[in-house]
Amino acid sequence: MTTFDSRTQNTSELDQDPAFAMHRGGKLHVTSSVDVSDHEGLSLAYTPGVARVCDAIAENADLVETYTWKSNLVAVVTDGTAVLGLGNIGPEASLPVMEGKSLLFKQFGDVDSVPIALNCTDVDEIVETIVRMSPSFGGINLEDIAAPRCFEIEAKLRERLEIPVFHDDQHGTAIVTVAALHNAARITGRTLADLRVVVSGAGAAGVAVTKMLIDGGVGDIAVADSKGMIYDGREGLTPIKRELAAISNKAGLQGSIESALKGADVFIGLSAGEVPESVVADMADDAIIFAMANPNPEVHPDVARRYASVVATGRSDFPNQINNVLAFPGVFRGAFDVQASDITENMKLAAAKALADLVGDDLSADYVIPSSFDERVVPAVSAAVAAQARKDGVARR
Amino acid sequence: MTTFDSRTQNTSELDQDPAFAMHRGGKLHVTSSVDVSDHEGLSLAYTPGVARVCDAIAENADLVETYTWKSNLVAVVTDGTAVLGLGNIGPEASLPVMEGKSLLFKQFGDVDSVPIALNCTDVDEIVETIVRMSPSFGGINLEDIAAPRCFEIEAKLRERLEIPVFHDDQHGTAIVTVAALHNAARITGRTLADLRVVVSGAGAAGVAVTKMLIDGGVGDIAVADSKGMIYDGREGLTPIKRELAAISNKAGLQGSIESALKGADVFIGLSAGEVPESVVADMADDAIIFAMANPNPEVHPDVARRYASVVATGRSDFPNQINNVLAFPGVFRGAFDVQASDITENMKLAAAKALADLVGDDLSADYVIPSSFDERVVPAVSAAVAAQARKDGVARR
Repeated sequence: MTTFDSRTQNTSELDQDPAFAMHRGGKLHVTSSVDVSDHEGLSLAYTPGVARVCDAIAENADLVETYTWKSNLVAVVTDGTAVLGLGNIGPEASLPVMEGKSLLFKQFGDVDSVPIALNCTDVDEIVETIVRMSPSFGGINLEDIAAPRCFEIEAKLRERLEIPVFHDDQHGTAIVTVAALHNAARITGRTLADLRVVVSGAGAAGVAVTKMLIDGGVGDIAVADSKGMIYDGREGLTPIKRELAAISNKAGLQGSIESALKGADVFIGLSAGEVPESVVADMADDAIIFAMANPNPEVHPDVARRYASVVATGRSDFPNQINNVLAFPGVFRGAFDVQASDITENMKLAAAKALADLVGDDLSADYVIPSSFDERVVPAVSAAVAAQARKDGVARR
Repeated sequence: MTTFDSRTQNTSELDQDPAFAMHRGGKLHVTSSVDVSDHEGLSLAYTPGVARVCDAIAENADLVETYTWKSNLVAVVTDGTAVLGLGNIGPEASLPVMEGKSLLFKQFGDVDSVPIALNCTDVDEIVETIVRMSPSFGGINLEDIAAPRCFEIEAKLRERLEIPVFHDDQHGTAIVTVAALHNAARITGRTLADLRVVVSGAGAAGVAVTKMLIDGGVGDIAVADSKGMIYDGREGLTPIKRELAAISNKAGLQGSIESALKGADVFIGLSAGEVPESVVADMADDAIIFAMANPNPEVHPDVARRYASVVATGRSDFPNQINNVLAFPGVFRGAFDVQASDITENMKLAAAKALADLVGDDLSADYVIPSSFDERVVPAVSAAVAAQARKDGVARR
C-alpha cells in the first residue's frame, strides 16, 4: 500500500507558489443547471423521461445536436509529447495545460471542453481512439502532439470525421501570426506580397504559419530547422519538410538561418534557437521580428527593437503578444454556431482577417494585434468563421 | 448542405414535453472556479505558471492527483447497445442517459464525470480505447453495454487499469438489491441464508445480483433466461452462464421459471418477462417479490402484494424503489476519497450493508431501502466503501 506522506509534505511546500495553490484539486468541474433533487426532476432528467429523448434521437439522429451537450463540446486531445516548451512529459503531466485550455475555451468562447490525454503515441492508435469516442463530441482540438505525427493525425481525422478538427499549435498560432504580420506590414506601407520571410522552426507551428502565409500571398518565405535552411533536394527530409521545400524558399537558400536572414524583411521565431544581435542588424530596413519562443524569445525584444520597425513575442509583458487564445475560442464558437462539419483553410484565413481588422486605425508599432482580453475578439472571429463556413458549404445550420 | 428547417419545426413540437424542454442544449457544462480574465490569472492558470505544475507532475507522477481534476473524474463509458429498456439505440441516442448519469454523479456524490459514448462494440476495441484515454480519468463507470460483452470488458479493464472500474448496471443494481433483500428477509425474521431465490434475467444485472447474493451467503439461488432455468449441463450456455450454472441452482432446477417459482421465497425480476398472478400465488409463505423491470414491472406491485410480504420495484411511484443512484455516487465518492485502485467485492458488500443499515428500526414492508433522496445515503455508503478499501489494501491515501 503506497503511502502519501511524502506527497503531503511536498505539496504544502509547492503551494507557496501561487500557480500550485491555484491548481490544487484541478481547474475544472462538470456542472448542470438541471435540478434532480426531487422525484419530478429526476423523472425528467433521468428515467423515465430521458427515454423519450433517447428514442427521438434514435429515430432522428440530428436531434442529438439539440438535446445533448455534444454540439458545444470539444475534446482537447493530447498524447503529451510536445507540451508547451517542456517537450515529451507524458499524458498525466500534460493535464494542467489541457485543463487550462478547457478553461480558456469556456471563459473566452463559451465552449465546453474536456481534456483527453492519451497514453499512446502511434498515429493510427490515436486516430482510431478519437474516431471511436467521436460520437460524444462536437469537435476535436488536437494539442501538444509532436511533429511530424501531428500533421498525419490531423489529416486522417479530417478525412474520417464530420466534425471540426483543429490542431491549435498549428492553426491557432498561424491565424494570430498571419493577422499580426499583415498589420506589421501595413505600418510600413507594405503587404504580405512585399515581404521576404524567414521562419525558424519546422514543427507544428512553423509548418502551419508557413503554409498559411503562402495561402495569404506572402512574397517569399523560407524555413529553417536545426540543420539549417530547408530547400528542395536537401537530403534526409521528412515527407512534411519535402512538401515545405517544394512550396517555399523560391530563392533556394541553403546553409544557416543566419545567412538567410541577411537582408530579409521578416524573422518569425517558432523554435528555441537564439538569434545573435549581429544577425538581426543585417536584416533589411523596416524589418519585422516575431520572436515567439517562450519564455525566452529567440532575440530579446529590447535588442530586436534597435533594428526592427515592429517586434512581437509570445509574452504578455511585452507589446504585441502572439497568443493563441485570440484564435481558438472564436474559431470553435463560430464553427459550432453554424454546426460546421469542418474548419476550412478559408475559415482560418477569415479568422486572421477579422483579428487583423480589429486593430483598425489604432495601428502602431506596439499595437499590431489586439489584446487577449479585448472583448471584441471572440465575436469578430466567430462571426467571420461562421460566415465563411456558410460560403464554403460546410455549415449545417 | 443539410438544412435544419425540419428539425426546428420538430423540436418546437417536441418541447411541449417537459422532458425535451429540460434537455434542450444538453444537461452538462464544464466550468471552473479559476478566473483567467486578466494577465495575472492567465499567467498562473496557463502559461507560464502552468509549466511549473506540469514539471512537478513529470517529476513526481503522484502529484497529478493533487493538482488536476483527474482524481475526482469518472468516464461514463457506453457503446449504446443496452440503453435502459430501449436496447441497442447506438452511441448518440444514448447520450441523454449518460449526461443524466453525470448529473447524478455530481449532485449526489460531488463526483465529476464525462459521458464517453463509443461507436465500436468489439470487446478489445472498447478495452483498448478506454485504456488509452485512462490517464485523464480517476475511474471508469461502464454503462448500458450489452451482456455478455460487458463482463469481459469489465474483467479486462480491471486487470489492466489501476483505477476503479465499475459496471453500474451490474454492481449498482446488485448493491441496492442485496441491501433491500437483506432487510426484506429481516422483516420476517430470516437471513439471506434462509432464502431460496429465483432470478429472472441473466443479463448484466441478473448475473451480478446472483453472484453478490452468493457472496452474501444466500441459501439457494437459481437464474432463468429466455430459455428457462440455467443449470449445469444445459446445452449451448455462454461462458458466463456456464459459470453461473456452476455456482448457482444447487437444486438443479430445469424447465420454466414458473415451475421454479413454486415454493420459492424470493422472485427477483431483472428482465421484461411477465410473471402471471397464478405463479406468484404458488410461492412460499412470506414471499418477497422484487419486480424491477421498468417501466412495466414483471408483476404489478398491487397484484404482488396480495401474495408477498415485501414488494419492491424500480419505479419511484411505488414503495421500495431499487434505484442505482443509492449506490454509484457513494461508491465512487468513497473510492475517490481514499484514492482506491480498485472496487473490490468486499467494498461492494460494504456498500450494501451500509445502505441496509440506514433503514434501522424504521424497517417495514414498505421501507426496506432508503429513499433516493435520503441525504444520509452517500455519506454512509462512501464511508463504508472507503473503510473497506483500507482493509482490502487498495487505498492509496
